[in-house]
Amino acid sequence: MADSKPLRTLDGDPVAVEALLRDVFGIVVDEAIRKGTNASEKVCEWKEPEELKQLLDLELQSQGESRERILERCRAVIHYSVKTGHPRFFNQLFSGLDPHALAGRIITESLNTSQYTYEIAPVFVLMEEEVLKKLRALVGWNTGDGVFCPGGSISNMYAINLARFQRYPDCKQRGLRALPPLALFTSKECHYSITKGAAFLGLGTDSVRVVKADERGKMIPEDLERQISLAEAEGSVPFLVSATSGTTVLGAFDPLDAIADVCQRHGLWLHVDAAWGGSVLLSRTHRHLLDGIQRADSVAWNPHKLLAAGLQCSALLLRDTSNLLKRCHGSQASYLFQQDKFYNVALDTGDKVVQCGRRVDCLKLWLMWKAQGGQGLEWRIDQAFALTRYLVEEIKKREGFELVMEVAPVLKERMVKKGTMMIGYQPHGTRANFFRMVVANPILVQADIDFLLGELERLGQDL
Amino acid sequence: MADSKPLRTLDGDPVAVEALLRDVFGIVVDEAIRKGTNASEKVCEWKEPEELKQLLDLELQSQGESRERILERCRAVIHYSVKTGHPRFFNQLFSGLDPHALAGRIITESLNTSQYTYEIAPVFVLMEEEVLKKLRALVGWNTGDGVFCPGGSISNMYAINLARFQRYPDCKQRGLRALPPLALFTSKECHYSITKGAAFLGLGTDSVRVVKADERGKMIPEDLERQISLAEAEGSVPFLVSATSGTTVLGAFDPLDAIADVCQRHGLWLHVDAAWGGSVLLSRTHRHLLDGIQRADSVAWNPHKLLAAGLQCSALLLRDTSNLLKRCHGSQASYLFQQDKFYNVALDTGDKVVQCGRRVDCLKLWLMWKAQGGQGLEWRIDQAFALTRYLVEEIKKREGFELVMEVAPVLKERMVKKGTMMIGYQPHGTRANFFRMVVANPILVQADIDFLLGELERLGQDL
Ligand SMILES: Cc1ncc(COP(=O)(O)O)c(C=O)c1O
Ligand SMILES: Cc1ncc(COP(=O)(O)O)c(C=O)c1O
Repeated sequence: MADSKPLRTLDGDPVAVEALLRDVFGIVVDEAIRKGTNASEKVCEWKEPEELKQLLDLELQSQGESRERILERCRAVIHYSVKTGHPRFFNQLFSGLDPHALAGRIITESLNTSQYTYEIAPVFVLMEEEVLKKLRALVGWNTGDGVFCPGGSISNMYAINLARFQRYPDCKQRGLRALPPLALFTSKECHYSITKGAAFLGLGTDSVRVVKADERGKMIPEDLERQISLAEAEGSVPFLVSATSGTTVLGAFDPLDAIADVCQRHGLWLHVDAAWGGSVLLSRTHRHLLDGIQRADSVAWNPHKLLAAGLQCSALLLRDTSNLLKRCHGSQASYLFQQDKFYNVALDTGDKVVQCGRRVDCLKLWLMWKAQGGQGLEWRIDQAFALTRYLVEEIKKREGFELVMEVAPVLKERMVKKGTMMIGYQPHGTRANFFRMVVANPILVQADIDFLLGELERLGQDL
Repeated sequence: MADSKPLRTLDGDPVAVEALLRDVFGIVVDEAIRKGTNASEKVCEWKEPEELKQLLDLELQSQGESRERILERCRAVIHYSVKTGHPRFFNQLFSGLDPHALAGRIITESLNTSQYTYEIAPVFVLMEEEVLKKLRALVGWNTGDGVFCPGGSISNMYAINLARFQRYPDCKQRGLRALPPLALFTSKECHYSITKGAAFLGLGTDSVRVVKADERGKMIPEDLERQISLAEAEGSVPFLVSATSGTTVLGAFDPLDAIADVCQRHGLWLHVDAAWGGSVLLSRTHRHLLDGIQRADSVAWNPHKLLAAGLQCSALLLRDTSNLLKRCHGSQASYLFQQDKFYNVALDTGDKVVQCGRRVDCLKLWLMWKAQGGQGLEWRIDQAFALTRYLVEEIKKREGFELVMEVAPVLKERMVKKGTMMIGYQPHGTRANFFRMVVANPILVQADIDFLLGELERLGQDL
């Protein structure tokens, strides 16, 4: 079998490889980039699942396919995918297509290495260190530690695991049964990853004590005090507070200084989930929203959201300088982290994480930052705030923009099927379903906001 | 601030965006693809960390940089990075640069979406389902469940979490303190992620009971029986066995049928860590190495290793048909998984995972499979086995290829500084440091194996 190489393989044929990749890249430029960011093209091409399955012909066969067929497939995949870089895509906390970040991602993919050792990722080990240093400096720390994680949810889990390990190092070896019952605190507006994390880490969702938020969505520090006392009275040991800078639905920033005071009084680890709002630290005008963040023990910050670096790009930052990350997560595997290497093995990052292979997530952010400069990124943040303000003012001017009935799901269906735009909706407390407008795409201008409002009116005319 | 847009931003200038990306793509083709896979170019360009830092000028500044400068940076990043697609890169369990997989990765990056809902990833939700179905069929299952995870380590953790949840559903809410002490079993040759996982999940590393392996590295089922009795005698509740198909250092395949018998007798969850060896299922000639895998409850399989799909591509496969994944990991976040959507929300995968945003990891594998066909992939596996056999026979013919002294670290330093090739080494039990040869790159031919042996001789001449 091994000697009758199938005809169609390109293995070892560099000319054919290059030709294929050039063709695919051409399709990417035409379909995903040019059309995908063009306001007059559709943001999505809605199909019902059954129809889409037919159109895509997904089944994997024994026979390989011709080059032409493969190129058609590439076109179809892009055609029926949602264009998250499109100026009418407001559906998630990420949007926009930064060209330098995309360039960094393409290079990352072509190099296909893992971030665990200096040996196989010399450039990226040093680069990750530099990027993390920069992010830490924006938090307000001159030293510290950190690592890129596969998303903010896992960054949050790391923080919880580090906090319990710092308090009870025994936990790593002996497990939670050797510990008293633990309690962690976060507001009712927190991201669901805190609860998911508590379950995954073996603490159980009951260990998460929910703190009240005010009507804007900010944690109420007095209630945090109350919840801590309550947990203690019930025999639990409080160990961590997770504050949120930029909540998922309302975009609220918890009062970090007041929360840090509470943590200090009770000796609790302060984690700040700044997955969404962390990037605001780049703006001199708006960074006051995170005042007090320098008092945190850990910060989760997702440049793949507001900075449009591309999925995934999530940093966990630590104030710690005692090598807590490696002590907590290390296993000293001899096949990967040999101590008799010919370079300084302190550079190897593999024992900082619970992963083994770890994607390179720093290059896209680094390259974008080099190209835009801190200034350019700051401008984008300020622009997002300015457009949001514009949106609020325009809504006030228009009648009918206070939703009193359950129209969001209907409007959503109409916009998606028409393909004109995408916005997420959800209920919230006693509020009916409402649209969560996310202003993050760097190519947005006022006209896009005007279109959005006009289109909502058009779609809802008969309702 | 928001009205004085910095000069250099490309936001909203599609012509400049396209031009930049075309230039970067040209660099990728020249440097990463053409040179990066050319045997007469260096596999790495070794620099000491301090020197490399200088060369790369990593610091992030306030000012943005010119287009020319950015392109130079792209070139430098590639130049100083290790070429993992190079025919002399044998250093990790992944290597090779499959053009179709890379094409899939570039499309994935250009579309930049998250796998959590059908709404924003219609193509990829259906595609992931199809790819997982195919992988399950190769395991021997007609039904089941599964999901792509950020690496095999996290896939293994999922398996452990699912096994304990199935046994003690209370665990999710009440945590491990509500459970008896648990024990899981794996051989001494297992991947370190099992231990890391036990710590992260709150079980503690003590909960991992190490089963003896024979001299080839295979778990000894009789010792597994012994360890189970021992754990029970100590008051622990055994709940999971993690067998390995393709161990990290020796490439051993645990005897799955015998292990499944033990699991069946004791009512234990059988997980198979086939991160490395799973792809052997594609080969009709060699798949007998995994006989019995169809009796597993879960399987972790990394197509980014032996199939060269690109980091990351790791599937967790489940035999379960009771929606265990969603019951174990779900949180029903109302902002993302609205139940009043206009399509069948059973398609949304977000509640199968502990992540929120989740990268699209299926397209690269799907596209490569469509192009190569199952046959083409099978040929590659068979070829890897054939070349390995050739290597073993050649080693037997050559003198001096039984390492009796500690020469591996010295040879490693020499090959890396010369840039001719990269192979990993490690000690193992009573064996001295030895080279772990990984034959996975699909472009390898016999001449590459000959080069490898010759070069080891050349590098070690004076030792
Ligand atoms: C506040 C907050 N934290 C954490 C996360 C999770 O981040 P990721 O999707 O990268 O896991 C999100 C995602 O929306 C979020 O809004
Ligand atoms: C047997 C085995 N399992 C699991 C893993 C971990 O996979 P990943 O690097 O994707 O986390 C490895 C990695 O080498 C492995 O060899």
